[in-house]
This record gives sequence, structure tokens and C-alpha cells, in this order.
Amino acid sequence: MRTQVAIIGAGPSGLLLGQLLHKAGIDNIILERQTPDYVLGRIRAGILEQGTVDLLHEAGVGHRVAAEGIVHHSIELVFAGERHPIDVHGLTGGKVVTAYGQTEMTRDLMEARTAEGLPTVYQAANVSLHDFDGQRPLVRYEKDGQTHEIECDFIAGCDGFHGVSRASVKGAITEYEKVYPFGWLGILSDVPPVSPHAIVYANSERGFALCSMRSMTRSRYYVQVPLDDQVEDWSDERFWDELKRRLDPDLASRIITGPSIEKSIAPLRSFVGEPMRFGRLFLAGDAAHIVPPTGAKGLNLAASDVKYLSTALVEHYGEKSDAGIDTYSQRALRRIWKAERFSWWMTSLMHRFPDSAGFGQRVQEAELDYLAHSRALSTSLAENYVGLPFELH
Amino acid sequence: MRTQVAIIGAGPSGLLLGQLLHKAGIDNIILERQTPDYVLGRIRAGILEQGTVDLLHEAGVGHRVAAEGIVHHSIELVFAGERHPIDVHGLTGGKVVTAYGQTEMTRDLMEARTAEGLPTVYQAANVSLHDFDGQRPLVRYEKDGQTHEIECDFIAGCDGFHGVSRASVKGAITEYEKVYPFGWLGILSDVPPVSPHAIVYANSERGFALCSMRSMTRSRYYVQVPLDDQVEDWSDERFWDELKRRLDPDLASRIITGPSIEKSIAPLRSFVGEPMRFGRLFLAGDAAHIVPPTGAKGLNLAASDVKYLSTALVEHYGEKSDAGIDTYSQRALRRIWKAERFSWWMTSLMHRFPDSAGFGQRVQEAELDYLAHSRALSTSLAENYVGLPFELH
Repeated sequence: MRTQVAIIGAGPSGLLLGQLLHKAGIDNIILERQTPDYVLGRIRAGILEQGTVDLLHEAGVGHRVAAEGIVHHSIELVFAGERHPIDVHGLTGGKVVTAYGQTEMTRDLMEARTAEGLPTVYQAANVSLHDFDGQRPLVRYEKDGQTHEIECDFIAGCDGFHGVSRASVKGAITEYEKVYPFGWLGILSDVPPVSPHAIVYANSERGFALCSMRSMTRSRYYVQVPLDDQVEDWSDERFWDELKRRLDPDLASRIITGPSIEKSIAPLRSFVGEPMRFGRLFLAGDAAHIVPPTGAKGLNLAASDVKYLSTALVEHYGEKSDAGIDTYSQRALRRIWKAERFSWWMTSLMHRFPDSAGFGQRVQEAELDYLAHSRALSTSLAENYVGLPFELH
Repeated sequence: MRTQVAIIGAGPSGLLLGQLLHKAGIDNIILERQTPDYVLGRIRAGILEQGTVDLLHEAGVGHRVAAEGIVHHSIELVFAGERHPIDVHGLTGGKVVTAYGQTEMTRDLMEARTAEGLPTVYQAANVSLHDFDGQRPLVRYEKDGQTHEIECDFIAGCDGFHGVSRASVKGAITEYEKVYPFGWLGILSDVPPVSPHAIVYANSERGFALCSMRSMTRSRYYVQVPLDDQVEDWSDERFWDELKRRLDPDLASRIITGPSIEKSIAPLRSFVGEPMRFGRLFLAGDAAHIVPPTGAKGLNLAASDVKYLSTALVEHYGEKSDAGIDTYSQRALRRIWKAERFSWWMTSLMHRFPDSAGFGQRVQEAELDYLAHSRALSTSLAENYVGLPFELH
């Protein structure tokens, strides 16, 4: 087989890249290790920046997010038992975020890809990347007991943190990492969200809690837990009880509980691998970087990588210019590091840290007090939350 | 002897408090362990918030700072070899800071106190504080081989970090502390300042540097050094050379060097003791809290404590209301913690940390890049730099 761009991974980054390249007339094949249902079963992010929504429209799959996505004009911080709204819309001159599950976005992209008859190879095993340092990269994989090869011009590694793409260049990458001393226990439940118009971030003496949503009938809630907690320790009843104790009394009294349809614990990590280009191999999304979920940047960063990368490839084929390719890593990383900073800051601001009962805890309280009363710092939070601008040129 | 308020310490806090109380008709005596010349010999802060300048006017000693203080409309950040002005004046709706040495402020207050014939006991030895839990506090001290006693209504502990006041209530204080893994080597030199209109804060690969001034002919410069460096290791020549290497080439080329008239290394520390009131004893200024000098908050915080405390005492004697006294600690601490946060943030942003070559260093670079391009975060820096508002009621 031969294609222009071989895309590794059929998650949202890979699918979005494939769609954008196709719209620009660039052939691509996607290889995915798992089945479509497995990919759709991953419950992840759910808040889209406007730039991400714009990209979905550009990719021709914006109709459902436009119809079903729920626009949020503000977020709410809860600390010292009180609620403090941050008017994101007002502070950013009219920008908003949209609640729309990653699963839904992936489904929209999958359906569009199927409708257009574009090639996706699911259950591609033992994928390996070759010769991307030269002019003729090759991707090899196994399927149904047979070995297949794809010759291509470029390889896009969109296969996540544990994928083969970054592993293929491990020795050439400088890694930056921060691991946080807690995790998030999250549940998904088919109950109306307590705060349908604003995500709620709560910092309580008992730890962090988050109230978010996927739709008007499906809620996503989280509580900070110690890293060694097990999901089995957390009955639904214990979860709901703990969540309520971390909110202010009014919000707590309005939580509608129900059985969980998903429940899991995720560690929190900051990670960046540099650079993101190795000859004709590009890394994008979680393959290159991870943010802690506070601040809702993970999926949006993957989308912004795809924006930079698709623009670069379109320039390569269309305008015969490699400027975008040559600066992909640098430009993507500049935006990524700002989002890493924001995610680290939001995480530091909203969680309780096991070892900071002293100076750090008091500084956190002062920062929350200052933030809630400073238009300047609230604006800084808001402009990061809706997404800093792309810098394409 | 008997007075209304016994003030421990004839540094800027104690002198300012004495002057403000006197203006309101409240008797006070100041006890100071050292001589006037020793007090004046301390080379410390030099940047005054407008609120501090206003207090000097209120205390009747504003004429010289008005005539000789040098108003700064902006500060300048240097990083990655480039200069980035922060238009403090524009971002805060017209607020400024004033360069005026702590020594000069202390001298103005001393001269006013002498002119008014107010009692100050210098070289008061073995000061001890008694009975401040009850209605009749007593201060005992020795001078010229004799023991003296002052009966008073209140004691104001303005005697700095190592003074007797906080030591007298040590068991009743909760202490919060952070020690930074570096110090500042500072010199004072009678040369024109390289940047007479804006303090320069530089973050270079070789560490932090600061260009400030006391007057148009006297400069104050600092470089970050390891904690175990000794002043003897630093000839003037080595200092000037190191300073220039930490600035951008243009600034470096314009540094005018000369012999140092003072040279010392100071560690950087954040410290807060809570509460700040113990019956009829109040702590103010460095006796209660220390900030690292990045951000220029130490002297200004001392002045804001004095503002809260003098207002409370005037209310007590004039309006027969103890509301200000009862809330002194809480109100002062609320402002102090925000200044502690700001000073910690500026310190974290501008220094090189020995152990953060990885993630932390990259986040710092991203924060500087973001700050230099974000009006919102620049405004947050500026509004803290000129001083957050007092909250008197």
C-alpha cells in the first residue's frame, strides 16, 4: 500500500487530522491497534475551546457539536465554602467553551470517515515505524496473521502516551515530567448535572471536586483521592457523599444522584517530550504531551497540534513550502508549554497537597482570595480557559 | 514612666507609628536597642507604594520624598536575553511606585520626631514585655546600668524579625516559613543607575539580577548567589562582571561601574507568624512577617500594618471603639498573605532554582513568555507591584 500520510491512532487527534488532510486532497490511512468500540469506550475530556469547535467545522463534522454541545459562559470556583463565578465570556470579550464529550467528537469523526470511504485499519497489531529519517518512510503492521506495509511521505504519531510513535524515537527525546501526589476518581452517571451552565471547581478541606457534564441528562463528577485508593473502595454511595461534602451546602443539596455507568481512578501527570518532529515523523496530542485534567486542556491541545500539523502538510503539498513542517515542533511546543503552565497552575490552585499544611497551603488560600477579587487574574484564568490564540505565522 | 503606647523598635515601622499616633494626640515612647546611626546604617528596601508615600504625608514627613523620590511608571523584565517593559502606570489606571531609600525614610521620621520633642530611648538594653494579657501592660528595660519601667495601655512590637516582641509570645504563634535555596549579593555604589526610570528584573541562565537605585547618583544592584557564597569571594570587579553577564547586551554596555560603598549577602525567606495581636500587644512589620525582596513588598507591608494599627488605636482612643483592635490581626494578615503570595511568585518566576532544570524550569520560561504577551497577567503583576488596596472597613 502507498499513501501520502500514514496516521497512527484513531483517537480524536488521528481522526481529526485525517479528516482535515482529506478535505485538502491529501491521501491518508489510519492504523489503530484497538477496535472502534474500544476507542469509543474511553471516557475522557468534555470541554472544547472555540478553536477546537472551529476545527470540527473545518473538518466537516461540526453539525452535531453545534446542535448538541452546551455552551458555557462561565466557570465557578468553590473555596472556603463559598461560590465565586468567573465570567469567562465577559472577561474574554465574548469567548466561550462548549461541553461535548470526547466520545461524541470521536464518533462524529469516525462516522464522517466511514461516510467518505476513507481507509482505517482497526486491530492493526505490532505497528512499527521505519525510515522516517529519510525520504521514504514505511509503516509495517500485522493483521489477521499477515504482515502489511504502507509506504508514505510522512507519518503522524497520534497514538497517545503509550503508543508506538514516541517509543520509536525514545532516545532522541528530552522528557519533562511532573507527577502529582493524588489522583481523580471520576464517575459518569445518567442524572441531570447540578450546574448545567458552568463547570464547578471546588477546593475544600477534604480535597478537590469537579462537577461537569456531557449533556443535560449525563453528568461527570470527580473527587481528588490518594494515589493508592482503589475503585473497589468507592461505592457509588460513598462517592456521592464525598462529593457533596466538598461543595458548598447549596450546590450539595441540589446534587441528583444515580448509579454510575463508569467509575475509574486516574493519576495526574504533566509530561512533555521534545522535539515533536523527527524527519518525516510528527508526534501530536498525548503521544507528545500530557496535562493534568484540571483546566480541560488535553483534548484541546491535541486539536491545536493537529491544526499546526495539518496546516504544515497542506502547505507542503499545496504551496510546496516546508516552512510549516520545519517550525511545527517549535510552534506547537510554545503553545503546549503555556497550556502545561496553566494546567499545572490550576492543579496547584485547586487541590490539597499532602505535604503543604504550612506555607504552601496559606499561599494557595491567599491566591484564591486574590483571584476571586482581581479582574486581572480572573481574566488571565479566563483567557487560558477558552484557549490562547494559535500562532500560525 | 507612663505612656499610652510603648513602641518597641525605632525602625521605619516604629517611627511611622509613633508619628501617626502623635498626630492623633496619642502619647508614645519608642525604645530602641541600637543607636540612631546603627539604625540608619541598615541598607534595605527602596521602592515605596503610593499608599506608603501617602502615609508619610499623613505623618507630616512627606516633603522630602515628594521632592527627591524618583517616580517609576514601569518595571522591566529581562529574560531570554530580551527586555520586556511592564507599563505599571498604564495597566493600573495611573498608579506608580517611588524609589526612595529606607534609610532616607527613617532619617525623615527621626528628624520629625526630634523636632517634635517626642521621647525615644536609644540603646535600651534587655527590653522585656509584661502583663499585656491584662489591662496594664508594662515594659522594662535597662539603660546606663539602671532598670526602667514604662506603664502603658498598649505595646506595639515593631522590632523586626529578631526582636524581643515576637519572642515574648513565641509559644502562642503559628509560624509559616519558606526558605529559598539562594541569596542576594547586593552592592550600593555612587554611580548613576543604568535604568533611572524602571527597576530591571533579569532572569538569565546565570541566575537573577536586579538593577535599582536610591537616587540619580546612587545605584543598588543585586545578583542571585548560592547560599554558601561569602562576600569576601566577590571583589567589586567580579560583581560588575557577573551583573553585566546577566543583562541583555544593551543594558550591560551602559552599566557604569564604581567602588562599592556597601556589599552584603542576604538569604531569601518567606515567614508569617499568626496571629499579630496578643491582648494589648501588637506585632507589626518584620516582627510578624518576612518576604523575599523580589517584588519590593517588605517595607510597604510594614507601612500597611502601621496603617491598620494606627487607625485601630485612633478609633480606640477617639471613638471608644475596639473594632479596629479586635480585627487588626485578621485584616493585616489578609493583606500580608496576598503580598507573601506575590513575593513568592515573583521570586519563583525570576530566579534559577538549583534543582529545577526540568519541568519547573520550562514552566517558568512559559510563564515569562505568557506574561510578556498577556495584558491580563501583566496587569495582575502591576496591581500587586503598586500595592493592593487597604481594606480598612
